[in-house]
Amino acid sequence: MFENSTKTSLDSFGEFNLIKKLTENYVSKKPNLILGIGDDAALVKPNPDKLQVYSTNFMVENINFDIAYTPLKHLGYKAVVASISDIYAMNATPKFIMVSIAMSSKYTLEALEELYEGIYAACEKYEVDLIGGDTNTSPQGLSLSLTACGEVDENKYVTRAGCKMNDLLCVSGDLGGAYLGHQLLEREKRVFVANPEMQPDLEGYDYIVGRQLKPEARKDVVELLDSLNIIPTSMIDISNGLASELKHLAIKSNVGFSIFEEKLPVDTQTLQLASEFHLDATMCALNGGEDYELLFTIGQSDFEKIKSNMDITIIGYATDQANICQLITPSGSQFDIKAQGWN
Amino acid sequence: MFENSTKTSLDSFGEFNLIKKLTENYVSKKPNLILGIGDDAALVKPNPDKLQVYSTNFMVENINFDIAYTPLKHLGYKAVVASISDIYAMNATPKFIMVSIAMSSKYTLEALEELYEGIYAACEKYEVDLIGGDTNTSPQGLSLSLTACGEVDENKYVTRAGCKMNDLLCVSGDLGGAYLGHQLLEREKRVFVANPEMQPDLEGYDYIVGRQLKPEARKDVVELLDSLNIIPTSMIDISNGLASELKHLAIKSNVGFSIFEEKLPVDTQTLQLASEFHLDATMCALNGGEDYELLFTIGQSDFEKIKSNMDITIIGYATDQANICQLITPSGSQFDIKAQGWN
Repeated sequence: MFENSTKTSLDSFGEFNLIKKLTENYVSKKPNLILGIGDDAALVKPNPDKLQVYSTNFMVENINFDIAYTPLKHLGYKAVVASISDIYAMNATPKFIMVSIAMSSKYTLEALEELYEGIYAACEKYEVDLIGGDTNTSPQGLSLSLTACGEVDENKYVTRAGCKMNDLLCVSGDLGGAYLGHQLLEREKRVFVANPEMQPDLEGYDYIVGRQLKPEARKDVVELLDSLNIIPTSMIDISNGLASELKHLAIKSNVGFSIFEEKLPVDTQTLQLASEFHLDATMCALNGGEDYELLFTIGQSDFEKIKSNMDITIIGYATDQANICQLITPSGSQFDIKAQGWN
Repeated sequence: MFENSTKTSLDSFGEFNLIKKLTENYVSKKPNLILGIGDDAALVKPNPDKLQVYSTNFMVENINFDIAYTPLKHLGYKAVVASISDIYAMNATPKFIMVSIAMSSKYTLEALEELYEGIYAACEKYEVDLIGGDTNTSPQGLSLSLTACGEVDENKYVTRAGCKMNDLLCVSGDLGGAYLGHQLLEREKRVFVANPEMQPDLEGYDYIVGRQLKPEARKDVVELLDSLNIIPTSMIDISNGLASELKHLAIKSNVGFSIFEEKLPVDTQTLQLASEFHLDATMCALNGGEDYELLFTIGQSDFEKIKSNMDITIIGYATDQANICQLITPSGSQFDIKAQGWN
């Protein structure tokens, strides 16, 4: 802000010069990468002892993000996190990503460089290599499509199908923060649009805002489970919301779940902000999404190994009532859990 | 047309039901696919004797396609072809694809099913498996992002860098057709917009229209080269146009190229239509793009093996004038070739 910086239009640059410019200082780190960015395709020598894991996801401006309050560097970082989070959810390790971008002419070279700074920062942090991509023009806005590739031992991968009755349902970290961060940023945007003199008031909510703008993938949880010799019976990452992910596990594993409202891990900032917004914190935890925590089930025999870990909360258990997910309140009432994206 | 069919809005369907609906009848064929669509990620057992090949590309409505004259089934087919064409350009064999789609509310379930019909038809034809993807909403139009994965023997992959001075420059099939098909469809669209009573007049141009709407990837050329025991010294697929691809090979291989105008393979329908549009057929062949033919170089010692093949044309040779690409006319004049996308 307040800078008088020079902006370079993408039109003046040409697609191939652009790719070169964005990737020229990037050095691949993986020894098994034979050929990275800059040809028709990338070449990788696979690890013969592992299974390959592939996931892809799409982010669209004004659907998944709003650049009015999302710094592009954070957006690039978050796009990588969202993409490799699916790999961790298989109990696997991400190794490579590919990033395709379509953008309208409002985006300058400098804007794209910022976006790539965030992409590279996440690659560095999570030790993944950017091996390719595509750039394209768009009549409107910015779209990002990322593909992540990882690997996993053949006897260690975890799917959504494998949970058995009485398995314990666990969640990492806390829930609802990313959703309330989104509500807060939307509110401050409305205030700013109504009165551009007003500066955004995010004080005291740095954790919540960070949950929305710069989430992390739970690499540490996958490593923790490995060090504790726990292979979850089923696992999924929380991108759409606990309620929706629960339904995925229930359907694929052909079980039901009962979860306890008072066990849902919710941060104090989330609680405080939910009350400020007159929102029910439980609803935020259930339906918020974008927390990128891991939701997984373990056999009861693994309970002792995990019970004292402060970052993992056991929130319920699997039942034999196929596809029925219930919330049990502190008073003992039971409610069917509804989920978004499932009509 | 003239049908009074029922259309189903996507809103009424829910994201996860949609994915299920689009993929429920699809049966994966690859024995090494451990887990396909329907989890956080797909799992594949790699072939330990091969390198993995990865490519990705992005198609955006009104930039890369116009649904006014592109049947969605053809669009799905073409998206797969464009994506696996990059794998063949590495002298490799595509094995898997992932398809991510963002679409606005104007697209119905029936429209998406048509798109997937085309995707599945291409998967069938090219023996690739659809292993995953993502669906998303878009404020405007349709975007497709495809990732293709393939494999290649470690001693057989071909990059853009490897061409040496005096290597022969070869191209498969013919050029400029897809571009003229596009011109023709655009003209008929303008006629139709001006007067909706007029039916499009595409008679006699089925080949050209097919080049634009339903291109094929040159799997057969990769197989031919293998059967002839030829490993090209460099290769690229023609998606942006001969001139642009030539420049890629020149830069990466640090050579120049001289090509002969009268050698450029141009179909008679292309010639005829170029003349009708008052366009120079050579310019169409050089800059048209989207033909998805293969452009490759071979050592002179391979000349005898390939010279009699009707589907491969030797159009020129590599020079030691780094990055200088020249067109030699029948009269012997030389022109520097300019390429799009390179400012």
